[in-house]
Amino acid sequence: MTAPGPDGRWAGRDVTLAELPIRDELKGSEPYGAPQLDVPVALNTNENSYPVPDVVVEAIVAAVRAEAAGLNRYPDREAVALREELARYLGHGLTVHNLWAANGSNEVLQELLQVFGGPGRTALGFTPAYSMHPILALGTGTAWVDGRRNADFSVDAESAAADVRRHDPDVVFLCSPNNPTGTALGLDVVEAVLGASRGMVVVDEAYAEFAREGTPSALTLLGASHRLVVTRTMSKAFALAGARLGYLAADPAVVDAIRLVRLPYHLSSVTQATALAALAHADVLLATVEAIKEQRDRIVTALRDRGLDVVPSDANFVLFGGLGDQKAVWRRVLEAGVLIRDVGLPGYLRVTAGTPAETDAFLAALDAALTEKGQQ
Amino acid sequence: MTAPGPDGRWAGRDVTLAELPIRDELKGSEPYGAPQLDVPVALNTNENSYPVPDVVVEAIVAAVRAEAAGLNRYPDREAVALREELARYLGHGLTVHNLWAANGSNEVLQELLQVFGGPGRTALGFTPAYSMHPILALGTGTAWVDGRRNADFSVDAESAAADVRRHDPDVVFLCSPNNPTGTALGLDVVEAVLGASRGMVVVDEAYAEFAREGTPSALTLLGASHRLVVTRTMSKAFALAGARLGYLAADPAVVDAIRLVRLPYHLSSVTQATALAALAHADVLLATVEAIKEQRDRIVTALRDRGLDVVPSDANFVLFGGLGDQKAVWRRVLEAGVLIRDVGLPGYLRVTAGTPAETDAFLAALDAALTEKGQQ
Repeated sequence: MTAPGPDGRWAGRDVTLAELPIRDELKGSEPYGAPQLDVPVALNTNENSYPVPDVVVEAIVAAVRAEAAGLNRYPDREAVALREELARYLGHGLTVHNLWAANGSNEVLQELLQVFGGPGRTALGFTPAYSMHPILALGTGTAWVDGRRNADFSVDAESAAADVRRHDPDVVFLCSPNNPTGTALGLDVVEAVLGASRGMVVVDEAYAEFAREGTPSALTLLGASHRLVVTRTMSKAFALAGARLGYLAADPAVVDAIRLVRLPYHLSSVTQATALAALAHADVLLATVEAIKEQRDRIVTALRDRGLDVVPSDANFVLFGGLGDQKAVWRRVLEAGVLIRDVGLPGYLRVTAGTPAETDAFLAALDAALTEKGQQ
Repeated sequence: MTAPGPDGRWAGRDVTLAELPIRDELKGSEPYGAPQLDVPVALNTNENSYPVPDVVVEAIVAAVRAEAAGLNRYPDREAVALREELARYLGHGLTVHNLWAANGSNEVLQELLQVFGGPGRTALGFTPAYSMHPILALGTGTAWVDGRRNADFSVDAESAAADVRRHDPDVVFLCSPNNPTGTALGLDVVEAVLGASRGMVVVDEAYAEFAREGTPSALTLLGASHRLVVTRTMSKAFALAGARLGYLAADPAVVDAIRLVRLPYHLSSVTQATALAALAHADVLLATVEAIKEQRDRIVTALRDRGLDVVPSDANFVLFGGLGDQKAVWRRVLEAGVLIRDVGLPGYLRVTAGTPAETDAFLAALDAALTEKGQQ
């Protein structure tokens, strides 16, 4: 029996990760996540740059106060009130039975893979897309295959369906608007993939509220297939990344299926109360969406004016290329106090659309970086 | 493309779970969880019956208020401040590097299985123990084997080590104090299992704060093996089941390993703030522990006086047997407004130790149930 050392400190050996019996496929992998750096302008994780308004702060505080004394009890395992309000927000005739919520859409996606993917099964996604999709596949023992995108990062219905037929995946991930490229998919792609597959088709719509006028949601297709799942989050348009609330809409049987693998009481009373308070003020929170879309469009125009290769965006971020060594540009922009994202696509960087002042700072930092580069 | 039906309702088919392509091993399984019934006296999920005191409510509200405006930003992915305070609470020379926290110990345990268990690997537990252990194994594709308990539900070092040698598991779950039986393990068992195994040994100490005087924690063994993990929760002694905060202490390499599979930003800013506020008032919250232990010991004595078979308890609950048809007794006790737990052990039921009034109500309901039974 080992007590703490003579100085009261823990007396362990501090072995390395390599000395632990972790799974082979995890060996050499790195934890996912952008650098959390303390910078004046953070435009790297597609957060909503607008703080939660006072009226919503007060509503959240009041909601948590109402729950706090009763925190000795487990939360509502079914989060019924929250799922009802999420259904009301989505519309399309959805009810509580179509909705499921968890700690961020990451947990929702992981649950989907636990029940529909897993060992001996395959998930397919059209890379580059949300980089957590393959990581969640790895974490759940699901094999991963990449579908094809066109050179301009678009996905067309015919090639997507062909990829699905070729690989016969159990789960297909579509991402619309796609992260990190920004463009929404046509519903013809969703329909083609549904038609070509025998498995589940998950449309990750984390950024749906930012889509350009006339962009339809896959929610409109839900009634047509029990194999279709649409995931959403309150992290982006609702400006609630810190509260961790993701959700899905699907056939009620999909919700039943998730119950088989969900962790009991996974969603705390405090999270449920916070999300409910925010949903009650959806109009206030979503009022930032138009302002963000304006900055998004301003960034698209400004970068095109600079002769850069800009991918059309339906999201609160813009992917732009033609940079040569994007790592060097990223570093120079960071040195000017603006943190953007190197998503690992050679020549490309991704920037979040935030406030007008943040756009100013970003464009100034980028101009300086590109000038500096030109002078080298 | 399917729009909502003419009445604006979702126009899906509402298929059954059997029509979805879920994993074979999940077919026929049921969602885990005790019935959430609205009863006067709920003694079925080992919650702490004492509400969170006002001073802690105010601290939680203040902490959430301080975070609320900034919820547009992601939380600290590493939850450093919280892990530091958890380390301080545990003592034993542990630091932030030894600690990891997640949404309930269920999530911690699932992460451990994702990294050290999973497809092609095996976990062993000494059933009956925490029933989520095999469920989490199922959900992560980890094979499960049962170790042996003695007829009185105890586990001895020699037989436990023999089970481990025979099955050669990748992960061993020990549960001390054990749920649902209540008794803590001797450290000789933990040491014997560590010595016999090549894999990780997880000691689930969810109920550690309720242990009888002189019961050592496996925390005292941490320095001796990097394969040892001790899990804890704030759901029980801290009266914070609704806040969902579980954690582990281990070699820092184990924390590094978990980062490979953890969902990024899994722990919300609100959860971190709530748990930090509670930890700052640990003395106030833990003041209920002695009162609960008194009721626990009172229940043990009262049930023994009634000639029942009572398992020694180091937890905030008591397992008792000699009931014959425990389902009938459970139902009669429920009809008297007291909800206890049928854990699936023939002849046995489990009751949570709560307030003195709850003990009164339970004993009265049980006496009535046993009398009624005797009269049949």
